[in-house]
Amino acid sequence: MTGNLLYAQSGGVTAVINASAAGVIGEARQQPQRIGRVLAARNGVLGVLRETLVDTAALSDADLARLRTTPGGAFGSCRFDLDPVDANPAQYDRLFAVLAAHGIRYFLYNGGNGSMETCRQIQTAADARGYPLTVVGVPKTVDNDIVGTDCCPGFGSAAKYLATSIREVGLDLAAMTTDGGRAFVLEVMGRNAGWLAAACGLAAADADAAPHLILLPETPFDEAAFLARVRQVVERSGACAVVVAEGIRGPDGQILAMHDRNQKGYIQLGGAGEVVAERIHACLGYKVHYALADYLQRSARHLASKTDTAQALAVGKAAVRRAVAGQMGVVGIERVSDQPYRWRTNLSPFAAVANLERRLPPEFIAADGFGVTDAFRRWCRPLIAGEDWPAFRDGLPDYLRLQLALLPPRLPADAA
Amino acid sequence: MTGNLLYAQSGGVTAVINASAAGVIGEARQQPQRIGRVLAARNGVLGVLRETLVDTAALSDADLARLRTTPGGAFGSCRFDLDPVDANPAQYDRLFAVLAAHGIRYFLYNGGNGSMETCRQIQTAADARGYPLTVVGVPKTVDNDIVGTDCCPGFGSAAKYLATSIREVGLDLAAMTTDGGRAFVLEVMGRNAGWLAAACGLAAADADAAPHLILLPETPFDEAAFLARVRQVVERSGACAVVVAEGIRGPDGQILAMHDRNQKGYIQLGGAGEVVAERIHACLGYKVHYALADYLQRSARHLASKTDTAQALAVGKAAVRRAVAGQMGVVGIERVSDQPYRWRTNLSPFAAVANLERRLPPEFIAADGFGVTDAFRRWCRPLIAGEDWPAFRDGLPDYLRLQLALLPPRLPADAA
Repeated sequence: MTGNLLYAQSGGVTAVINASAAGVIGEARQQPQRIGRVLAARNGVLGVLRETLVDTAALSDADLARLRTTPGGAFGSCRFDLDPVDANPAQYDRLFAVLAAHGIRYFLYNGGNGSMETCRQIQTAADARGYPLTVVGVPKTVDNDIVGTDCCPGFGSAAKYLATSIREVGLDLAAMTTDGGRAFVLEVMGRNAGWLAAACGLAAADADAAPHLILLPETPFDEAAFLARVRQVVERSGACAVVVAEGIRGPDGQILAMHDRNQKGYIQLGGAGEVVAERIHACLGYKVHYALADYLQRSARHLASKTDTAQALAVGKAAVRRAVAGQMGVVGIERVSDQPYRWRTNLSPFAAVANLERRLPPEFIAADGFGVTDAFRRWCRPLIAGEDWPAFRDGLPDYLRLQLALLPPRLPADAA
Repeated sequence: MTGNLLYAQSGGVTAVINASAAGVIGEARQQPQRIGRVLAARNGVLGVLRETLVDTAALSDADLARLRTTPGGAFGSCRFDLDPVDANPAQYDRLFAVLAAHGIRYFLYNGGNGSMETCRQIQTAADARGYPLTVVGVPKTVDNDIVGTDCCPGFGSAAKYLATSIREVGLDLAAMTTDGGRAFVLEVMGRNAGWLAAACGLAAADADAAPHLILLPETPFDEAAFLARVRQVVERSGACAVVVAEGIRGPDGQILAMHDRNQKGYIQLGGAGEVVAERIHACLGYKVHYALADYLQRSARHLASKTDTAQALAVGKAAVRRAVAGQMGVVGIERVSDQPYRWRTNLSPFAAVANLERRLPPEFIAADGFGVTDAFRRWCRPLIAGEDWPAFRDGLPDYLRLQLALLPPRLPADAA
């Protein structure tokens, strides 16, 4: 089967999703006997429906090298789920009309759990219609919550950035120790799964180093037990650094968030760090600072993990090889050994991945619920290993700002 | 005059204050004919009063090299002002008793505006008492608000980190552009002076790049004009990235902060970013995220500016040379030329620096108040130039955790 390939990005972007894009494009150029043009959709599957496509042929090898080290989603991402095929057949008619108009035979979708469901829906619809298409999912998420892979591209770099940051803040905090006690709270991403918060645990070489306590969404927040531990740390060390996952929940299962923010309906999930900071201040009287990393943590390409960038590139390349071999499914990373760390790509069926969610297993969570185990550290450490600095110019990372002209549409604009 | 040297750190620490410490210690070791022992006080002048001193002779050359690349204040910092000498002569009696007990003839204090007043007080008191002491101030602050120097060690690295971060977030934000409009707010340090917020302007290569708008403490916050500009940017680009200095004030001169936080007396200055984010959401209906860099920005040694680390080292060395020459005052950086950027150290009298504050001059602020001028960019660009990576181990910066034993006290504990 020879045809064109369409690549698109979906969901929250990462520091290394463009490395996967570079892997896809670079590998596709190695397959001229199977792949004609390598197109990309603007803003994910929305761009397919809207027929806003670009041709990556315009990218030079130098562009691809810069794309590999540029954070964000260079082709644009989206948060958009296809309807069930029965509920909206017209949506699928449009989708396949666009694919057909551009001779697409391979669709590679770079996203998280929800995007893998989109892959499954498109593959199923293609098969039902007899449209010749191989769909391959390329995983990305800082949340590391995708099933079927040992780790997700995007996670290792965000983990490295956050662990580095809390180690740095720990030194700052220790310097400023005052008699009255001090605390610092860093809120990190993780709605249901605490992988990023847990990764901060790599920063602490011993019990006196930051972070002293980690609050995970997997463990119900026991305020009294937590405050007792904060007091204990401060009495021993003078200061306590806490990492809080944005999605921590009280014993009632409710997310911790600033009430007034809830009432205004203004919810960036988050505020958990601020709540925890206020509780420490109100109950223990310590001076408290907090930081909210928000998008900084998922775009900090300046401190990418070498393992992570290599894996992001590899899943892109592997997806192309699977596609041209007619192997549909979701590419992932399989861990071959811990020491030395060795890995290879694998492939999982859509149904084994789509819309599922992988949370921290109990063996990775410390018995008291406020930290991680050595088993977690062994698992996580290789994922943040190595540095892969971007090029700098005038003191700042020299990132690619991709500006490809849209291909002329071949279809009338979709009324839908 | 031959004697011992005492070094101490004060105020909010930075990513490069320890480079100044390494400069002091390294240079002092080159002056054996003038300087005997090189001591350091724990937690600034408080450590002098408490006689909690350490001997830096225990630091190997390898330790010093690691100290140079370690953020935070390795010797401990403090926020403590001496009383006026007339109000509390006993405090000065104690201070000079400690200095005398350890044979201190040189006192080098590494801090900001307030710490330079401490230098002035100690020098004045020494002169009045006939105690042979040369005091030299070593500047440090991320806020860049010290008078008498072209720039302050600590600023360039924080500026580089923040400008990099907003450039990275800008790519993330652009990828996720949705039809409804999006905004992002990054709150940075700057109580009265907007140098760090302004530095973020280096990240924008053109008007379509982040940050689109910068709110400075030097310009009263005009909410209506600001919201109009946000709307304009979003209508043109789909998304707007805003940098907010923590100390912005309304036309009434009041700091913007979350009201409920004020009422609880829980004030980490800050919350300005959250207020601005809420106003954007409430008035324009955009999806808004915000981030609060807090201590991360002043401890991010992993992304230090090479210019900044060189200057931090240089002011430490220069302070020792001034001290042994009997030249009291505050060391600073003098700009010799812009292109190529050339600088040297200088020395200002205490009275010309102490307790003063340097804010952004009008020629550095854009006419509309929402950005910076080319003159500012020319001034600022060399300060973030070059990278000076710390060593990494196991994926994380291999920072020094200094643990020097306290010297046995030579005086009875101070009752005061």
